[in-house]
Amino acid sequence: MKIGVFDSGVGGLTVLRELVRQLPSADYLYFGDTARLPYGSKSKGTVAKYAIGAVEYLVDHGAERVVIACNTACALAFSEIAAAVKVPTTGVIEPGAHRAAEESRSKAVAVIATEGTVNSHAYRSALERLGVRATEKACPLFVPLVEEGWLDHPVTEEVAHIYLDGLRREARDADALVLGCTHYPLLKPLLTRVIGESMAIVDSAESTAAEIAQLVGTGEGKGNVHFFATDSVEKFRRAGEKFMGRPIDGVEHVDLES
Amino acid sequence: MKIGVFDSGVGGLTVLRELVRQLPSADYLYFGDTARLPYGSKSKGTVAKYAIGAVEYLVDHGAERVVIACNTACALAFSEIAAAVKVPTTGVIEPGAHRAAEESRSKAVAVIATEGTVNSHAYRSALERLGVRATEKACPLFVPLVEEGWLDHPVTEEVAHIYLDGLRREARDADALVLGCTHYPLLKPLLTRVIGESMAIVDSAESTAAEIAQLVGTGEGKGNVHFFATDSVEKFRRAGEKFMGRPIDGVEHVDLES
Repeated sequence: MKIGVFDSGVGGLTVLRELVRQLPSADYLYFGDTARLPYGSKSKGTVAKYAIGAVEYLVDHGAERVVIACNTACALAFSEIAAAVKVPTTGVIEPGAHRAAEESRSKAVAVIATEGTVNSHAYRSALERLGVRATEKACPLFVPLVEEGWLDHPVTEEVAHIYLDGLRREARDADALVLGCTHYPLLKPLLTRVIGESMAIVDSAESTAAEIAQLVGTGEGKGNVHFFATDSVEKFRRAGEKFMGRPIDGVEHVDLES
Repeated sequence: MKIGVFDSGVGGLTVLRELVRQLPSADYLYFGDTARLPYGSKSKGTVAKYAIGAVEYLVDHGAERVVIACNTACALAFSEIAAAVKVPTTGVIEPGAHRAAEESRSKAVAVIATEGTVNSHAYRSALERLGVRATEKACPLFVPLVEEGWLDHPVTEEVAHIYLDGLRREARDADALVLGCTHYPLLKPLLTRVIGESMAIVDSAESTAAEIAQLVGTGEGKGNVHFFATDSVEKFRRAGEKFMGRPIDGVEHVDLES
């Protein structure tokens, strides 16, 4: 079984990492659209066009199933992407919403994500279908703070307080916090400290990998992982290691615009 | 005289604003490549390709002279861009370096910019040709902080202290600070407070407009300004107003990838 994983950049490697952990014998193709990242602040039409091009590339290279690891792409254009390709497609929003609905006793959940994901209200819609109320909050500085490497920095903690203290006042009875962006799992220790014990943290990356594992069984393959990036291979390798949690080899440059 | 101004997004509007202030009777075409921003962390090949496409578009639409307002594009690919078009081309780095060399008595200058601009050492090279030593520092969080609207926020001040206190220890005798990114002029009041009186702040946007004004005289025209954006027109208008300092009309969507 060859599984394609698509993201706007290296953030989706947190999803790939979970997939490899839960399904080590499957083969993986990862596509990072690093030349055109970030998608978080772009419009629906632009995001759909970019994502479809990348996902078609994965299918052309043998992916039998595709995971859209990019929350923004799922939030803005999941149905367009899924309709454009002929293999089964899984996003990160439904699995994250399902897990949050299971975790929450109060049936009230808070969601943090990029501006694009929040404005789409994709998590809120998915949670409402499950009978759960959702309060969403855009945290646009978290991605640059993670990329600066300030994972456990006083500035990041201050920014987290500003974003989350407001969110908690607004969503008083919420007992779960969904990390609705692939970069956020790297902030998990800091976020746990900031929100305290009252909320369970739900990581969409982990929930998505669990859903795929359920769908494909052992996903027989050779455990190979191959990477495609639209910007510099060297930058991908360097930035990706933090997200993947191990050194990255076998990165190939792709130009989708020529 | 019709002047084309190119930037990766809305930041270059700080350059356009200065041009309009200093040369109000010229006509302007502004191109913001908002679908593919930011350029700051992308590689030379990708940045050159994107910038050349945009600048050719400006020339095809009547620009008789082009200003590359994007520091990263200038830093990584100015000569490639200038060679690809048939009209005179001005970047923001040489004018900023010239002004800094004039302002500095100690002949030592500090430069803050994006990662891409700093790694290219384009400011250092330009300043060294003028007999001035330069110490460069990447400040990757300033652009997202400006885009979050935290122009005078305690978090921004703390981040500025972290970046600039280190820079000042490294560049002890520097008496001028070059703002080597189009977003940074919006932080000028805060940066002035953080660095104190010992350094003069040199704004590349303002220096570039002054150089163009010298080159073209009054730049006769009707004072028209027209905008092109590769992502949503509405987003461009909304985000651009802060940088332009006034409401923005006449934005047209352009797709360079179809």
